[in-house]
Amino acid sequence: MTDKLIKPVTLKGFRDYLPGPMMAREQLIETARQTYRSYGFSPIDTPALEYSEILLGKGSDETDKQMFRFTDQGKRDVSMRFDLTIPFARFAAQHLNDLGTPFKRYHIGTVWRAEKPQKGRYREFMQCDFDTIGTDSNTADIETLLVIHDLMQNIGFDEFVIRVNHRRVLNGLLEQLGLTEQATGVLRALDKLAKIGRDKVIAEMTEQVGTTAEQAESVLQLAETSGDSAEDILEGLETQLAGNEQGMSGVACLRELIDVCRTVGIPAERVELDVSIARGLDYYTGTIFETFLTQLPGIGSVCSGGRYDNLAGLFTKQSLPGVGASLGLDRLLAAMEELGLCDQSTTPAPVLIVHFDAAHTGDYLRIARELRAAGIATEVYPEAKPIKKQLKYADRKGFRLAIIAGADEFTTGQWQVKDLTKGEQQTVADGELVEVVRGTLTEM
Amino acid sequence: MTDKLIKPVTLKGFRDYLPGPMMAREQLIETARQTYRSYGFSPIDTPALEYSEILLGKGSDETDKQMFRFTDQGKRDVSMRFDLTIPFARFAAQHLNDLGTPFKRYHIGTVWRAEKPQKGRYREFMQCDFDTIGTDSNTADIETLLVIHDLMQNIGFDEFVIRVNHRRVLNGLLEQLGLTEQATGVLRALDKLAKIGRDKVIAEMTEQVGTTAEQAESVLQLAETSGDSAEDILEGLETQLAGNEQGMSGVACLRELIDVCRTVGIPAERVELDVSIARGLDYYTGTIFETFLTQLPGIGSVCSGGRYDNLAGLFTKQSLPGVGASLGLDRLLAAMEELGLCDQSTTPAPVLIVHFDAAHTGDYLRIARELRAAGIATEVYPEAKPIKKQLKYADRKGFRLAIIAGADEFTTGQWQVKDLTKGEQQTVADGELVEVVRGTLTEM
Repeated sequence: MTDKLIKPVTLKGFRDYLPGPMMAREQLIETARQTYRSYGFSPIDTPALEYSEILLGKGSDETDKQMFRFTDQGKRDVSMRFDLTIPFARFAAQHLNDLGTPFKRYHIGTVWRAEKPQKGRYREFMQCDFDTIGTDSNTADIETLLVIHDLMQNIGFDEFVIRVNHRRVLNGLLEQLGLTEQATGVLRALDKLAKIGRDKVIAEMTEQVGTTAEQAESVLQLAETSGDSAEDILEGLETQLAGNEQGMSGVACLRELIDVCRTVGIPAERVELDVSIARGLDYYTGTIFETFLTQLPGIGSVCSGGRYDNLAGLFTKQSLPGVGASLGLDRLLAAMEELGLCDQSTTPAPVLIVHFDAAHTGDYLRIARELRAAGIATEVYPEAKPIKKQLKYADRKGFRLAIIAGADEFTTGQWQVKDLTKGEQQTVADGELVEVVRGTLTEM
Repeated sequence: MTDKLIKPVTLKGFRDYLPGPMMAREQLIETARQTYRSYGFSPIDTPALEYSEILLGKGSDETDKQMFRFTDQGKRDVSMRFDLTIPFARFAAQHLNDLGTPFKRYHIGTVWRAEKPQKGRYREFMQCDFDTIGTDSNTADIETLLVIHDLMQNIGFDEFVIRVNHRRVLNGLLEQLGLTEQATGVLRALDKLAKIGRDKVIAEMTEQVGTTAEQAESVLQLAETSGDSAEDILEGLETQLAGNEQGMSGVACLRELIDVCRTVGIPAERVELDVSIARGLDYYTGTIFETFLTQLPGIGSVCSGGRYDNLAGLFTKQSLPGVGASLGLDRLLAAMEELGLCDQSTTPAPVLIVHFDAAHTGDYLRIARELRAAGIATEVYPEAKPIKKQLKYADRKGFRLAIIAGADEFTTGQWQVKDLTKGEQQTVADGELVEVVRGTLTEM
């Protein structure tokens, strides 16, 4: 041991997870896993490190700059992954013959970006993606929406809206208006509608992109198509896009999606057609999804995705169309905390066995074992400290029941069961302890 | 898209996890989590990257050389973690006031070492640690053994042995023999007993460490103390160490451990006192654990650990005694594969709904939803391809049941349920489908 202590600190933009937040994160991951698996998505994993060549130039200049990149012991140019999409493209190209198509996978993993740290933004965070590749069937798009829906519901959210659009609806209109060449500029302007408002979007289209005022007005009209129901909106779109094959095929996909939502019983208010969303301009080619929490719209979309034509074009000549979405794990965790959906306890065990008498360690450990065998997580305080100290520990961690026995109880074969919330205490015979604890926990 | 394709490869020593192995890994992690949680251990996480100063010089020169170390965008000297122990020491020193003691945590995370890649050894692998810190009570040592026991049992192993020793037993003997100064050399030689045999160990002690032949013989005798039961061995040790306080206190700890194992009903053959194990010479100071699979002793210990006096001495003046162990996740996975304990299926869903008729996509998705609501993971084939192709897909992935319906079935409100193992098929009414599928899966 040296005399000089090393200061125990984490790197700027990085953080430790203490038990409370970590338990919430584990629960969220577990819910996502169960939901993905219930639809037949299989898990995969890829390395944290890749050849830089694999990752560079796939996102933006910005993401290239944010990559943790270095030369390893073997003089290789390597980087830490900054998302799970590029590694999945590499993975798909590399293993496609083993996997076959269609292929449905989920991938929950850590990624790293040397972003400027801000409140709630870290340089290390988890992504939680799922995709169906190797099929261009609209069924996979519809299923993507269903997964997002179930995911939000299973996490515990009641009030959320999944906004859906289809790129072919927008492209059809631009084609109709003779604006196909200016598509990128027009859509980039349109994407700002919610942020900067109608007039500024029209100004950007006419002044910077070079559309006429009428063209801009038509785009806005389509984007603003509204109605009392998704069916109304679909009718409006069909009227406006009549005769345009591309546009009508996009509307048909959206109509099938809405029809299935009705058939399987998704509440109507949870799916909203919104022709103004145009995310991921260069990547998405079909259905697009965004998900907003009704109570917290300000945090932005918590689960987004869409359909793409070609996942792995940089790595293989084989065309791999697909559709998927990504759950914003850390953003959701922050939201859950804000909405009071997180448990305040920092122990996974509801029961603490007080260590009253060191001569009876074996008995404490035996009864803990019986409770565990009945599926009740149970901690034994490790040493015979004053009971007040042990109960303070129980309180701080959020245990729900304390089980106590000293000389008197061991003589009579009984235990004291203390409800730590109400402060009530009952005497229970050894043979009935498991049942009483189970019953008390169920009632709490 | 560029014309030149980038070759899709992983770095040397790294690998992708395809669905089969990844499902096995997820299951193992889930079992470990549930076991740790059942004892009240809470999860934590620490960053993949730390200041190099935190990690360097804590393991061996070897681990220093194997660290992935670089300068980040902010000119910081950073390294990827090579184990979870040093980050936990830093974590404990940093957050101790928030956490309080005793503190029980588990940590399941990826670590990186630029080792020479060998069969079954990778540069990226997972560790799975649990520790109780802030107490020197032997109860925590005993509980560590119980956790290891339950972990192995819950994973599905029946035949395993946890070998236990106590450093104070060895130290007491060395004290008795006047060999305290030569302890490191003597124990290093002793640790090779299983590998090189008795004569060579004695030769090393006398020739290199400088003990007399009698001293070497005494050490060997103690290390080889055997008996029909742990109780016999304890008696033998008590005879040999009579009068030596340190040695007798070590024996007392072991005796309490064995007593509790009897009280709580751990099968006697699963816990073995072995005075020859002396792992982690510089780190462990009390109880030591190693775990071997009876059917695969050659793969070495799959879960090892012990008691230490001071976890975080490099980071804080506060003394933090503790005890814990680490599950060799990848080694265990390899063992499970060898023993045929891994499922061969590559889908988490047992049921595939065949997409027979594109006009009925909504019905397929509806029935899938009903099955999911009943807790049965169900995949819908994404498009109406030939049924033969879909059944081939089901076979390759390892689905157990296929559910099929075409025009006839939709007219009569029925479904065909095909057992993919036996090839048998039955006709089931729509309203009974969920119950029949559940029943059939339970019987399989």
